[in-house]
Amino acid sequence: MESPLQFKHILPVQLRFSDVDQFGHVNNSVYFSLYDLAKTTYIHDVMGRLLDLEKEAIVVANVSANFVSPIYYSDNVAIETTVVHFGTTSFRLEQQAVDVNTHNVKCTCTTVMVYYDLKSQEPMPISDAFKMAVCKYEGHPID
Amino acid sequence: MESPLQFKHILPVQLRFSDVDQFGHVNNSVYFSLYDLAKTTYIHDVMGRLLDLEKEAIVVANVSANFVSPIYYSDNVAIETTVVHFGTTSFRLEQQAVDVNTHNVKCTCTTVMVYYDLKSQEPMPISDAFKMAVCKYEGHPID
Amino acid sequence: MESPLQFKHILPVQLRFSDVDQFGHVNNSVYFSLYDLAKTTYIHDVMGRLLDLEKEAIVVANVSANFVSPIYYSDNVAIETTVVHFGTTSFRLEQQAVDVNTHNVKCTCTTVMVYYDLKSQEPMPISDAFKMAVCKYEGHPID
Amino acid sequence: MESPLQFKHILPVQLRFSDVDQFGHVNNSVYFSLYDLAKTTYIHDVMGRLLDLEKEAIVVANVSANFVSPIYYSDNVAIETTVVHFGTTSFRLEQQAVDVNTHNVKCTCTTVMVYYDLKSQEPMPISDAFKMAVCKYEGHPID
Repeated sequence: MESPLQFKHILPVQLRFSDVDQFGHVNNSVYFSLYDLAKTTYIHDVMGRLLDLEKEAIVVANVSANFVSPIYYSDNVAIETTVVHFGTTSFRLEQQAVDVNTHNVKCTCTTVMVYYDLKSQEPMPISDAFKMAVCKYEGHPID
Repeated sequence: MESPLQFKHILPVQLRFSDVDQFGHVNNSVYFSLYDLAKTTYIHDVMGRLLDLEKEAIVVANVSANFVSPIYYSDNVAIETTVVHFGTTSFRLEQQAVDVNTHNVKCTCTTVMVYYDLKSQEPMPISDAFKMAVCKYEGHPID
Repeated sequence: MESPLQFKHILPVQLRFSDVDQFGHVNNSVYFSLYDLAKTTYIHDVMGRLLDLEKEAIVVANVSANFVSPIYYSDNVAIETTVVHFGTTSFRLEQQAVDVNTHNVKCTCTTVMVYYDLKSQEPMPISDAFKMAVCKYEGHPID
Repeated sequence: MESPLQFKHILPVQLRFSDVDQFGHVNNSVYFSLYDLAKTTYIHDVMGRLLDLEKEAIVVANVSANFVSPIYYSDNVAIETTVVHFGTTSFRLEQQAVDVNTHNVKCTCTTVMVYYDLKSQEPMPISDAFKMAVCKYEGHPID
């Protein structure tokens, strides 16, 4: 299966021996660590900095993943990430785990993330600076 | 938020210091380890045995989770699990992470699992024995 | 192998499917998560509270573990913990992972921990309150 | 602190957000995942192949680690690995986690590994092929 979406952000990930389960497959829960890593890197790459974790946070509200085929320890894997939608206080990311050698998609994942004010402990509107940085990075407008 | 679903299978889980991230929250990826643990335990409790991992496997095809509120290291958490639907080669599980003290739901999760023949590497029909064991355990018929 | 040391603090631990590696063994790195969990619980049980993590920390300076025999997912395991020595700013813990059913020792571990002032970022003398609480808990004096 | 030992094998490692604990430090147990990853890579690089995991295994008998200073998520870390001693059925590895930018040593680790026959479930003599491959890789004889 090849992917119809276009991804500009591609992060090669380093698998660990401890990621592999009894079947020789990378354990499902590890995928979410890798998606998380790619999200953090995406935001850093787009913003040119890490978030100011004293003030703001971007928290995961919903995750939905399709496991297409297993990942093995010897596989060369990258996580591809793109933002596909902006709401008022939330946005939607599409991600996929791809075999770098075959371009086969191993797993796809949709995540809804919420922009969060750490002081008030409430969702807050996504800043225009963040939206603009994402659109500039992706090279096209995003709904 | 209290849950509308009824869960018979309730597994208290033991959190680890390494499960907690920089915000003091249990990391998202850990939830899936806990859901996995509860699934494995559910199947064992329902079948009266572990799966014969030489022959058959039950693999996760799709996972969708809603993160309602954070879990802290000092929280007392249980994972509740029930089967809500049988297809031909797949079935659907509902799970939730619940604060044992307050009964607040921290996270809900729907999983589609596929019955898998390890020899042919193909999905196979869910056995009647498994369906019956689940219905007997749950105490009611399941679509 | 049975253990010569006496342990009063025994923490049954919950293994997770994701803890198991390709050989069906609990991965070595997981042992340290379990030892950490037992340390945190020990300190909580001895002190009657969690540490005030805004002010003080107890950090691991050195860990030395002997892996005696593998732990399997179906094993019933407990971590046993005791303090065997107090220095000025550090103390030594002995721990072991034990099969609850057979009493076989699976792994032993010695840890040197340092009492740490989070404000000055320097080691600080272990408080008499902590020493007394440990000796009272263990039921005998400790060098 | 700079290291007195010479390391030829240097593996840059990719940290994950889930590796970081409540103090913002990479959790102690994660170090052992990283050391494991570096060991597996070392053996692969030295032997030109992965081990034949159906027949032989190299298992960890003893691990001893000194935690010198914390690793932060934003640190650039590599694991350095070398073999320093061969016994009959075991050998000793030295490893260290190093800040790639400052060359500061964050943690050092000594591991005793045992060559293991999976069929007889007994330690077996280290093959001359393995010893020679290691010495050739390191560029000097090893006791």
